[in-house]
Amino acid sequence: MKEINIGLIGWGNIGTGVVKLLQQNEELITKKLGARLVLKKIADIDITSPRAIKINKNLLTTNAREIINDKSISIMIELMGGYEPARTFILEAITQGKHIVTANKAMLATHGNEIFRAAQKKGVDIGFEASVGGTIPIIRTLKESLIANNIKSIYGIMNGTANFILTKMTEEGKDFAAVLKEAQALGYAEADPTYDIEGIDTAHKLAITLSLAYGCKVKLENIFREGISSISQQDVVFARELGYRIKLLAIAILHDGIVEARIHPTMIPFKHLLANVNQNYNAFHLIGDASGPVFLYGQGAGMMPTASAVVSDVIDIARDLQKGVSDRVPPRSVSESIMGNINLMPMDEIETKYYFRFSAVDRPGVLSKISGILGENNISIATVIQKAQKEDSAVPVVMTTYKAKEKNVRKALKKIDKLGIVLDKTILVRIEDELI
Amino acid sequence: MKEINIGLIGWGNIGTGVVKLLQQNEELITKKLGARLVLKKIADIDITSPRAIKINKNLLTTNAREIINDKSISIMIELMGGYEPARTFILEAITQGKHIVTANKAMLATHGNEIFRAAQKKGVDIGFEASVGGTIPIIRTLKESLIANNIKSIYGIMNGTANFILTKMTEEGKDFAAVLKEAQALGYAEADPTYDIEGIDTAHKLAITLSLAYGCKVKLENIFREGISSISQQDVVFARELGYRIKLLAIAILHDGIVEARIHPTMIPFKHLLANVNQNYNAFHLIGDASGPVFLYGQGAGMMPTASAVVSDVIDIARDLQKGVSDRVPPRSVSESIMGNINLMPMDEIETKYYFRFSAVDRPGVLSKISGILGENNISIATVIQKAQKEDSAVPVVMTTYKAKEKNVRKALKKIDKLGIVLDKTILVRIEDELI
Repeated sequence: MKEINIGLIGWGNIGTGVVKLLQQNEELITKKLGARLVLKKIADIDITSPRAIKINKNLLTTNAREIINDKSISIMIELMGGYEPARTFILEAITQGKHIVTANKAMLATHGNEIFRAAQKKGVDIGFEASVGGTIPIIRTLKESLIANNIKSIYGIMNGTANFILTKMTEEGKDFAAVLKEAQALGYAEADPTYDIEGIDTAHKLAITLSLAYGCKVKLENIFREGISSISQQDVVFARELGYRIKLLAIAILHDGIVEARIHPTMIPFKHLLANVNQNYNAFHLIGDASGPVFLYGQGAGMMPTASAVVSDVIDIARDLQKGVSDRVPPRSVSESIMGNINLMPMDEIETKYYFRFSAVDRPGVLSKISGILGENNISIATVIQKAQKEDSAVPVVMTTYKAKEKNVRKALKKIDKLGIVLDKTILVRIEDELI
Repeated sequence: MKEINIGLIGWGNIGTGVVKLLQQNEELITKKLGARLVLKKIADIDITSPRAIKINKNLLTTNAREIINDKSISIMIELMGGYEPARTFILEAITQGKHIVTANKAMLATHGNEIFRAAQKKGVDIGFEASVGGTIPIIRTLKESLIANNIKSIYGIMNGTANFILTKMTEEGKDFAAVLKEAQALGYAEADPTYDIEGIDTAHKLAITLSLAYGCKVKLENIFREGISSISQQDVVFARELGYRIKLLAIAILHDGIVEARIHPTMIPFKHLLANVNQNYNAFHLIGDASGPVFLYGQGAGMMPTASAVVSDVIDIARDLQKGVSDRVPPRSVSESIMGNINLMPMDEIETKYYFRFSAVDRPGVLSKISGILGENNISIATVIQKAQKEDSAVPVVMTTYKAKEKNVRKALKKIDKLGIVLDKTILVRIEDELI
């Protein structure tokens, strides 16, 4: 039986999962593939810390180039994460004619143009199913299953940590800071949680998703991004009263030749499937012009779920190797040689519905002033909630709007926040309630 | 630019959708594929009825063999449905070296062994993503994305008509017969609805799904199947009271070397994603040993959603044609040459929880008799609901059980139904409340 040699660089949590999966389901994989996957070498700067798997010590090295320069290895799995030396190792391995499997979204979102071009030029495959949505087959679905569709919209919950925090805030009535601490204690959030809670990780994933959905290059810095740290328990409670749940959504909407792309906390109707994605799960709600809505859900991270996606890419490439072909499907949906830049809509131009929470002073005429300024800026109010005031504190006044232009909303809020009738910066949460 | 010629046999609703999609998104498809798909011939017994698309009349023929014997056509799409002549045409086309794309679940569930073997022997590809779950990428997910997993369980809503009826019964409080009539008027149910409501269509789809998930041959007649026609509005209401919704589920659970496979109306917790699949949507909840839960949702039928899946298969095969390869992925996960038969658990042996609705006579001691017989058969009662009796009618007594053996349940109900203390056959609905 044919053997296909693999090298792994990066032997952390996911790397350990990949080794474990290759061992535990070896018979199943061999039967389906009709060839044996042989893990020939594992490189990591730390090869001594104990891992929960048995491994032949001769496979271990601290020198990644023992994999990159090993002519017998056809597929290199990169699971070190970070920008460097991951980027350099991948480019070197491509030069050596190795096929690549990676879960490194930060690196692909940043250096994707360089890496994908190099891969296609050299005629090697690059699998990255694990980089977005973990175990969820979002990459394969966009590149293959929905290939004949114009993707009209994408709504995604792409970060498990942020979703875990918002779920806890919703279900347990706790405030952001308390839940974040809990998530850190459980290992669901990093000591520095910025990447997850400020939407940076989500932006990496949306950038990759956009490039596949529209076959275009995407500049990460052009994607509008707002995190969840300003969401308070009050907003969660008001959202419930209005029939919504708050999720950190990555949103892409195709207009005529231009794509609206943004990441922010979003109120969505509690009956929608996305509103029922809880804990650390991820999900994607796509609408194709032919397919209609397609919803995909699963673990967006974690050792074995991510390993499942990594190994599926390894097997996909191994099938090409068995047939002696490569570059069957362009890495980002269309050939790198004809790939243009995505045309992103400026955030000022987007139109959506809004939730505002004003911390108003308790004086006559405040509601009139606020609504007057909104009116001047073509913002129509849909609902108003004003609760009885607690002693000596500001009165929370909540308004939701009909569709309004982001530019007008910012202008109006800037004016309102300067009038001396609100005690705190006004909280804004965008509403998406026309999801099907 | 390279051209790949396609022939279509069966120009009904889906066939029209395929032609429409190839026309409407031609530019997109050509750009992604790097080749042009050319629809060279369409065969149907009716080529005169108007369709909502423009088509060159020279493409039309009433003779399928003009496609089968046309050496310039590489891919034949079969969308005629039914067993014959679809089976014969496909086998002939395979003999001519044509690759096949089909949505014909009835034919594949019945004649799959013959057809897949012939295709693999001849070295041609056969795509059938559209045969199960319509636009949902369930076939690709099982064959490729989750390939490294042992599939621990599959819970699927695979028939849109049955789901539409159950949704209406749940949301509008109407009885089965009334909703069925409405569904027929809307074109969601056939004049003879047997296939959909008795779970036959679901059985075809589960048989195909099982063969991919476990890489085994499946005999359709060995799958236990129970339809939704015995579900009444009363049961929907009791289900709600118990925290459940009723769905027609296809269920597969992997035990040690044996698979439990069954289709029946099922009570599932209303918070589960599957309980929130409404109208005519389909969904699949899979658990892989590495991936954990994966949930896929979308339109299981309909012109354009099904066309989206058909064209994705055409493009997949076209990519192989461009590279000069075929049989990259075995049609049913493992090579036909080593594929064994699935080992299915006899229905008697399965264990699950149950809902019983007894139409009890209003006499003292009835509850005691019923519970006595259940106890004798090792069936433990979890909850009992008994409502006040309406004049002169039977008292509905509802019980749910802890896990019990199907064999024991049947034995007990047979005995109870003979005692003269129930006025109607006892209604049984299985409960699955341990879904994650």
